[in-house]
Amino acid sequence: MSFVIKSTRERAKVWSALFAAHLPDQKVEIWPDIAAPAAVEFMAAWVPPPDLATTFPNLKLLFSVGAGVDQLDLSAVPAQVQVVRMIEPGLTEGMVEYVRFAVLALHRGMLRYVAQQRAQVWQAHPYPPASSVTVGVMGLGQLGLPVAEAIRAMGYDCQGWARSRRQIANIRTFAGAGEFDAFLATTDILVCLLPLTQETTGCLARSLFGRLPRGAGLIHCGRGRQLVSDDLVAALDEGQLSAAILDVTEPEPLPVGHPLWSRTDVLITPHTASITRTETGGLSILDNLRRFRRGEVLVGSVDRADGY
Amino acid sequence: MSFVIKSTRERAKVWSALFAAHLPDQKVEIWPDIAAPAAVEFMAAWVPPPDLATTFPNLKLLFSVGAGVDQLDLSAVPAQVQVVRMIEPGLTEGMVEYVRFAVLALHRGMLRYVAQQRAQVWQAHPYPPASSVTVGVMGLGQLGLPVAEAIRAMGYDCQGWARSRRQIANIRTFAGAGEFDAFLATTDILVCLLPLTQETTGCLARSLFGRLPRGAGLIHCGRGRQLVSDDLVAALDEGQLSAAILDVTEPEPLPVGHPLWSRTDVLITPHTASITRTETGGLSILDNLRRFRRGEVLVGSVDRADGY
Repeated sequence: MSFVIKSTRERAKVWSALFAAHLPDQKVEIWPDIAAPAAVEFMAAWVPPPDLATTFPNLKLLFSVGAGVDQLDLSAVPAQVQVVRMIEPGLTEGMVEYVRFAVLALHRGMLRYVAQQRAQVWQAHPYPPASSVTVGVMGLGQLGLPVAEAIRAMGYDCQGWARSRRQIANIRTFAGAGEFDAFLATTDILVCLLPLTQETTGCLARSLFGRLPRGAGLIHCGRGRQLVSDDLVAALDEGQLSAAILDVTEPEPLPVGHPLWSRTDVLITPHTASITRTETGGLSILDNLRRFRRGEVLVGSVDRADGY
Repeated sequence: MSFVIKSTRERAKVWSALFAAHLPDQKVEIWPDIAAPAAVEFMAAWVPPPDLATTFPNLKLLFSVGAGVDQLDLSAVPAQVQVVRMIEPGLTEGMVEYVRFAVLALHRGMLRYVAQQRAQVWQAHPYPPASSVTVGVMGLGQLGLPVAEAIRAMGYDCQGWARSRRQIANIRTFAGAGEFDAFLATTDILVCLLPLTQETTGCLARSLFGRLPRGAGLIHCGRGRQLVSDDLVAALDEGQLSAAILDVTEPEPLPVGHPLWSRTDVLITPHTASITRTETGGLSILDNLRRFRRGEVLVGSVDRADGY
């Protein structure tokens, strides 16, 4: 009946204390100090230990400490183990902040001003009203939905696309492959918040960029492997895209010498848009563990077929 | 009974059309083509023509086309001429966008990431929750008040300072010289939106920076002459300030070779935080002209003693 925490020392310490305070009957062990692997039923990890199936034969729940589970090799996780994504308010808040920042930066031409500063040039450029700028959010899940609502609340025209139909107040929604072109054709600033799946791997490529209006901007907060970096460079060179703000890259981390680093029309942040907040992330795990004990549906349970 | 527009060709054209559509009985002339200067009663200008008093002896209203009137030599404007600042929704919206961007950029350490990108370094840094960051807005007028409310709405702790007492929901307010130190001592990110007056000239100086918590950030959207640039450079060098985002500078435009240009802990934009929107700015002037005809109080009327 042990709960194993495999994470940073700081997180392990805070989460152990949270368990002691809120769920004192739950035994907690911190990886790699595990007395009896066969007694381990629960584990929180970014990447679980190898040989999960054989080492922990009685594992029931595997919590990802991040919003995605694409870092996991789901085929190595036994079918009876339920995999749970991290859904917690700190993670959402961080992403909302990042996309707010990125949309404002693209709308107001801030990458150009950064470049002008390096050249010591003082020259203002006009900007359009926010209401005339259409921000299109791809992915309307736990992060995409609050992001779209926050962008709309700043006065932008906002629309969203998801695999299946969503209804959101004041935000136009598009669904599935059949409406994807119409979504792209009317999007001035594209925000990618899709999960990484087979379908979305390499989706940010030439063919997608070409369906956006000329001069569109890109904000990529999904996963690096969704991006075809060479195609992005080409689209920027051709003027099909005007600028990009990337929190994730391909490859990631971006190696020294990669052409994206030195572009003034690209802003790169090191996968820091949104980080699981230790305290609220721990409370989210505790909440799910209580749900599990009561036989309730967990928050963020992963569908193996969908891969997220 | 003529209304003179002294502005860009584009603005003059749009505003003439607005007058024709909404106030067709008002004669409009575009500087410098004026038939009879003695018949001029109204003027909209950034900087009025020289010899205002003698050339236009019957001038009654002088509209600034910007949010401030510090560009005007008020002593050269006859006492019977009422001076009116520009208050219009586009100007407010632009400033709200800019300060939102700047607060998010400082909170999330974006200047550091820009510098890391130049060095091709991929390294993430933790960030605090927005609720633990106190943003202090100096100036709670037509721009400062909506800015403070927008920052609060993004989840930051927000407080404001003004010369006289203001009551604003969910925002702590400080008033006058007596409460200025308490305001500064608790402000992590300082936003300057004060008008330029004798009192505020040079206010962003060593003594003010020294009263902020160590490592505070500065966002300057007031007027360049409020900033003592050498003191800012010193405060950044000493670590008393961690970063600054400047839309206005001293001198302005910032000359080539000025030490502020090349700092990676400073972002400079060329006085473009907020620009009067042609259409809504013209409607604001029309609205005030109607108020004048009806003998009503004008929106944005300048107090000569206060200088704003």
